[in-house]
Parts: sequence; structure tokens; C-alpha cells
Amino acid sequence: MSNEITAEVISIGDELLIGQTINTNAGWMGGKLGLIGIRPKLVRTIGDDRQEIREALSTATCDVVLITGGLGPTKDDITKHTLCTFFSTKLVRHPEIEARIAAFFESIGREPLEVNRAQADLPETCTVIPNDRGTASGMWFERDGRVYVSMPGVPYEMKAMMEKEVLSRLQERFHPPAIVHRTILTTGLGESHLAQRIETWEDSLATEDIKLAYLPSPGTVKLRLSAYAGDDPDEVRGRVDRKAEELHALIPDLIFGEGDEKLERVVGRLLKERDQTLSLAESCTGGYVSHLITSIPGSSAYFTGGVVSYANAVKMEELGIPAGMLELNGAVSQPVVEKMALGVREALKTDWSIALSGVAGPDGGTDEKPVGTVWMAVAGPDGARSVKGFFPGTRDLVIQRSALAALNLLRKELEAVAEVKA
Amino acid sequence: MSNEITAEVISIGDELLIGQTINTNAGWMGGKLGLIGIRPKLVRTIGDDRQEIREALSTATCDVVLITGGLGPTKDDITKHTLCTFFSTKLVRHPEIEARIAAFFESIGREPLEVNRAQADLPETCTVIPNDRGTASGMWFERDGRVYVSMPGVPYEMKAMMEKEVLSRLQERFHPPAIVHRTILTTGLGESHLAQRIETWEDSLATEDIKLAYLPSPGTVKLRLSAYAGDDPDEVRGRVDRKAEELHALIPDLIFGEGDEKLERVVGRLLKERDQTLSLAESCTGGYVSHLITSIPGSSAYFTGGVVSYANAVKMEELGIPAGMLELNGAVSQPVVEKMALGVREALKTDWSIALSGVAGPDGGTDEKPVGTVWMAVAGPDGARSVKGFFPGTRDLVIQRSALAALNLLRKELEAVAEVKA
Repeated sequence: MSNEITAEVISIGDELLIGQTINTNAGWMGGKLGLIGIRPKLVRTIGDDRQEIREALSTATCDVVLITGGLGPTKDDITKHTLCTFFSTKLVRHPEIEARIAAFFESIGREPLEVNRAQADLPETCTVIPNDRGTASGMWFERDGRVYVSMPGVPYEMKAMMEKEVLSRLQERFHPPAIVHRTILTTGLGESHLAQRIETWEDSLATEDIKLAYLPSPGTVKLRLSAYAGDDPDEVRGRVDRKAEELHALIPDLIFGEGDEKLERVVGRLLKERDQTLSLAESCTGGYVSHLITSIPGSSAYFTGGVVSYANAVKMEELGIPAGMLELNGAVSQPVVEKMALGVREALKTDWSIALSGVAGPDGGTDEKPVGTVWMAVAGPDGARSVKGFFPGTRDLVIQRSALAALNLLRKELEAVAEVKA
Repeated sequence: MSNEITAEVISIGDELLIGQTINTNAGWMGGKLGLIGIRPKLVRTIGDDRQEIREALSTATCDVVLITGGLGPTKDDITKHTLCTFFSTKLVRHPEIEARIAAFFESIGREPLEVNRAQADLPETCTVIPNDRGTASGMWFERDGRVYVSMPGVPYEMKAMMEKEVLSRLQERFHPPAIVHRTILTTGLGESHLAQRIETWEDSLATEDIKLAYLPSPGTVKLRLSAYAGDDPDEVRGRVDRKAEELHALIPDLIFGEGDEKLERVVGRLLKERDQTLSLAESCTGGYVSHLITSIPGSSAYFTGGVVSYANAVKMEELGIPAGMLELNGAVSQPVVEKMALGVREALKTDWSIALSGVAGPDGGTDEKPVGTVWMAVAGPDGARSVKGFFPGTRDLVIQRSALAALNLLRKELEAVAEVKA
């Protein structure tokens, strides 16, 4: 498409080139640009070097050039001065930005040094983009129909600046063809099996002018529906929503949320809504499910605690698994995992519990129970329910995928409970 | 330096531009190149598009151009055909590569399809670099004094190819100034405090022609010593080793390993050597320490299990903390964390235990115990020992940094035990 709006990212930082810091910014920005109809075309990662920055700026050909990095109080001379040279302007002190910086330091109980105040020295001809989360301002330049935006390299600061200011300004400036999209999050089936299950639904998208993308990551597959909004965005939005609802009705067991949601957050919200509590008994996942649950702020409202029962002795003594049951069935078995769930629920006096027992590998697999075999159970007011999963892959993958599968089991149980306490 | 050897990476893949996959390859390659004396100068990430690949190839100016991606059986026409056009050559079937592909499929019990066999169609003028871990071969080209190497984008395959073939071939081809280096891993002090503590030692490096780099990441700071090997590499190696030993003697409390070591692996090895066992009682870290320990294959040999005591009731019932102690001191306190460590060690009958109790935030902080305050204890044969740490930052950072600090406490206790069982 010749009237397509394209973007390039210039990531500045020696630490990115040597792999000390992974460049997560560029991909994140590309994803956000795509959602507003601007195509990310190129990322250039270069060192903290004036000549290389100038070279990158002067060879940029896209409509939008997003620059990150090189704006800290010790490094600011590099990007800022290079931008001044490139746009034939000079630095001037911006009093309102200096006041923001002083206020920022006051809020953390410190006095700004002159080196901090100097971050209010910004190119005279740029539009300053305020930074809510730090002291390095963004800078917006235009030349020859091209927009250049320089932002700090700290992801937390850059992301806020993009979401609060830059993306909407780019939409205003370029009016890219608006795109309507919904991203539906699934877990429980790999990409190819999922595709089989929704084949008929997927085939019906073409006649509706809706595109579908499969975005897989360990344990989840995101399904992104998108369509050009055209002249009647409401009609298109309605069409996309209708197809999304069809999908929800088709695979409710696999869908746990939309957008940037996380399964551990969904489970937490469901528990909170029901004013209920959770405990965990983990064997093969070794505390990872507990870590996911407690990574959510406020999880202490519903998460009571857990037992990591790596050794069989712990399964017996802390969770009340009879020695004979372990001997007869082995630790990776349905009776043991159900008893683990019931045992931890009783010991920690919670409404719900999850238990996992499996072979994470790389050693310990057998013909009958190969690496990746994981029994998962959920216990609740009506007793325990369990399923066996098979998650082949490295130790990390077995742990990640079985953790998500177990959380999804609990999600389904919680959603099946019709009565929600007020 | 004008005779410096420089490198650029061209990463190909639409999934990288939209952030569906994070580009971890480029930084990893840059780090490895730096270690053999080749300077990584530029990374370009582009889409699966012939014209953009051709454009990137034809504007490359570095001595070494490393290309990843676009070599899968469904995508191979893009990179391979573009390389053929660029180097004015054509694809020919390589029988020895076809045999490798057939053998690879046989090893996983499958029959190769023609689309798989076609991966043995490679440019006539390239030097083929075999792939031990997959079916897409590497391709080495030279033109105008410049070397171009195309590799698969799968990190696991690319890394093996780099380490087994590409890095040594680049050394042979360019004879970059050899560099002697050692990377020493520390935890327990942030970059600036660490720098203060080793200031005199650091000052002494200049006269020895040794450079020092601080490479910080959450909870650890890597110290990389490097020196040009010159004409007498053994002498230089001896000089670097001497300085490294001085550092080990200076801060043994902070150093937990070298190179790519992980603290959780070091602790596991120390326990295994002593034929001893470990249990955990975690509050604020919510299972993360347990997850770190069990991420190491074979950890069941020394890790018995743990209790995640998020609610006070669990601290009382599972770990035997008296209610009065909790009331009097609060959960985040020295008596409680020591009793947690003693309690879990007794309940799980292990030689050692670690306990943590703190304020991970973002809520729950007080003037007396702000977010980031964490009490950590280690209990062993001689009772419990505890320290208070303060790790300001986001919830994730508090969890990560306190987990490493607690593991380091145990490391120091284990290393202080002179007697090692045979």
C-alpha cells in the first residue's frame, strides 16, 4: 500500500549491543504502532556515539522515527546535542520543565543537583513531551513531512509517554487508516490443535473482512482479530465484536481473558469477587504457581499460602498422603494429586486449592510417565477434580505450561459456580 | 581504532518488529563478538521481505555481517533466494546436507517431506555451516573483504552454530586483537556501593592495563576484567588472574561465582557436596526462591520442600510461630523470620533452611517498615542467623533482589562450614 504510514525505531545504548540489556522497547513500540495502523518497518540498535546517531537520523526514510535512550543526566549530551545539530537548533532552559524536575525530586525527598536541573535544557524548536515518571523529557520534531520523537530508554518511562502522548499525537498527525481489533487470550491447546477446533469459525472471517493472527507464547495462544475501520467504524466494531462473541461461545474452556490480561490476575479477581481463598500444593512446579499468584499486588487478600512438597516425606507429613498410596501409584498419579489438593485445602483452611505433581525433567521420565507428564487437581467445596496433562519440552517449559494449565482448571471451576457472594 | 574489526547483525522476522518475539539473539551475538575482540556496532531488525533484506545487505559497511532468521522450511525462499541474488549465485542440492536432514528426521522417528529435503538446496558459492540442532544450515559468504554469515533464527540452533563454528572461523579470518577476560559475579551491594568498596583495587588496574566494566542486573553486578592479550597472552592471562584473585580475597562475601554461573546453582552444588538438604519458608517472596532452586535440574537431590506462609495463620500453624510473637513484633521482624526458619527446618527435617518476611508492595509499607524492607534468616546445625535488607523498587524487584540476598546468606553459611563430607 503506497499511502501506508511506516515507522522506524532507533534504539540507542552500548548496553543493548553487547546484550547486557535486552532491547524489549523496540518490539513493544512496534506492537503499539501496529494497533493504530502504522507499520513498524525497521529497528536500528546503535551505540552511545554521536556519529552513529547522526548517521541513523540522516538515513531514516520512514514517516515516523522513534528514538529511545541516551537521555539520562550523565548521557544527555549525546542524544540531545546530536538532535540540536541535526535540526539546526540550540538548547534552552524550559522553566516549566525545571519546575517539574524540582517537584519530582521533592516527591522522593531529595534536592535536585544542577546536573538534574540541566535536564530542562531542551532543543528550542522541539515540542516537549512531559515525562510523568522521570526527569528526561520527550522531544517531538518535524521535518520534510517526517516526525521524529526522542524518548527515554527506561521502559517504564517510555511506555507511559507513548500511551499518554505519542500514540494519540501520531494518530492526529498522520490519520493512519484506523484499525479495529480485539485480542482474545487462550490457554490449553497449542496453535495447531486450536486452529483445528476453530476452523469453521476462522473460515467465516474472510467474508466479514476480518483478519486473524495467532500469537503463541509458552502456555498461551493470543488470537488477534483486526479489520480496517473504514468510513463506518461503528459498523466494523460491531462486526468484530460479533465474531469475538461467537468465539467466546465456541471455546469458553480455553479463553481466559482479552488484551494484556494475565491468567493469574483473572483467577485472583474471580476469587476476590467470591470472597474466597486459595492454597497450593506444588511438586513439579516447585513454587512457580505460587510465584505467579503472588506476583499480583494485593494477592494476600485471597492467597493464604502453599506447600512445595518436593520430597515424598513432605507429601506425607504436610499433606497427609498415605505412604501406601505413594508406593502403589507413584507420586505422579491421580490419587496422589487429588489427595495433595484435599490435604492442603484442609491444612490451610481455604475455599479452593490447586495441586500439581509431574515429571519436569530432564531426568526422571519413564515409558509410562515420560518427561512432561503432569497431574493437576483442583479441590473446592464439592471435592477434588483432576486431569492429566502432557507438556513436552524443556524443564522451564514443562513448569510454565503446567502452571498455566492448572490455573485454567481453577478458573473453569470458579466460573462454573453460579452463585457469587455479594 | 582504525584497524578495529566491526560487526553488524541483521535480524529478520515480522514477529520481532511487532514484539511478538523479543530479539534476544542480537544482544547475545554482540556479547560473544565482544569477547573475541570484534566490536558489535549496529543491529538492524527487519521484516520477512525480500526488498528489505536486499536493502540491508547492500548497505552493510561492517567487516562482519551476521544474519539470522528466514530459514525455516516454509520461509526459506526469502533469505536463501535473496542471498543468491545478492551474491549472483544459484541454489544447488547438497547431498551431504540432505543426508544430515534425513538422519535428523530419523532420530525423531519421522520421514522428511520434500519441503524438508529442500533445505539442502543451498547457494552454490557459499561455505555451508552445519546445524547440529535443526535442519536449516548456516551459509558463509565473502565479498570485498567482508564476511556475511546467515544463520537460523531459533536461538538454540543459532547459539550452537556460533559457538561451534562461526566465532572460531571469524577469529581465523580476521585475527582480531585477542582479549583475555574474566567475569566475576557479585550480589549484595548495588553498583555505586560496590565501586566504593573496591575503589583502591579498581585504581590499581590502570597500571596493569586491565579494564573493568560494571554490568548490573536486578540483584547482581557482574565485574568484567579485560585486557588485550598482545604478544604474550600467558603473561596477560597471569596478570588478569592475579587481579581477579585479589578481588576474590577482598570481597568473598559478595562473590558467588564467575562467567554464566547462577547463585541458585552454586547453592545447590554446595549442598550436594555436603550431602545436605534445604527447606524454605517464604512470605513476601511468595514461592520465588523455591522456584529458583527448583529451576535447576536435579534439585530434588537436596531440596526437600517449602512452605509459602502468606497468611499469618499459616505462619502459626505450619511453622509454629506463636500468635503473641506476631502480635508483638509484626510478621516482618527478626524474631518471626528466625522462628520461620527454625520452624520449617524442624517440620521438614532438613539440614538448612531459609526464611523471608518483608513488604513487597506496592501497598502495606509503613514509616517504620517501608516497601522493600525484608527480614531474611538462615537456620542450620548451629541455629538461626538473620539480617534485615532494604530493597526499594517495584514489587518484582523487591522479590527478585531479596531472593538473591537470601540465597547469598545461605551460600556464606555453607562456605563457612569447613568440614565437607566426603
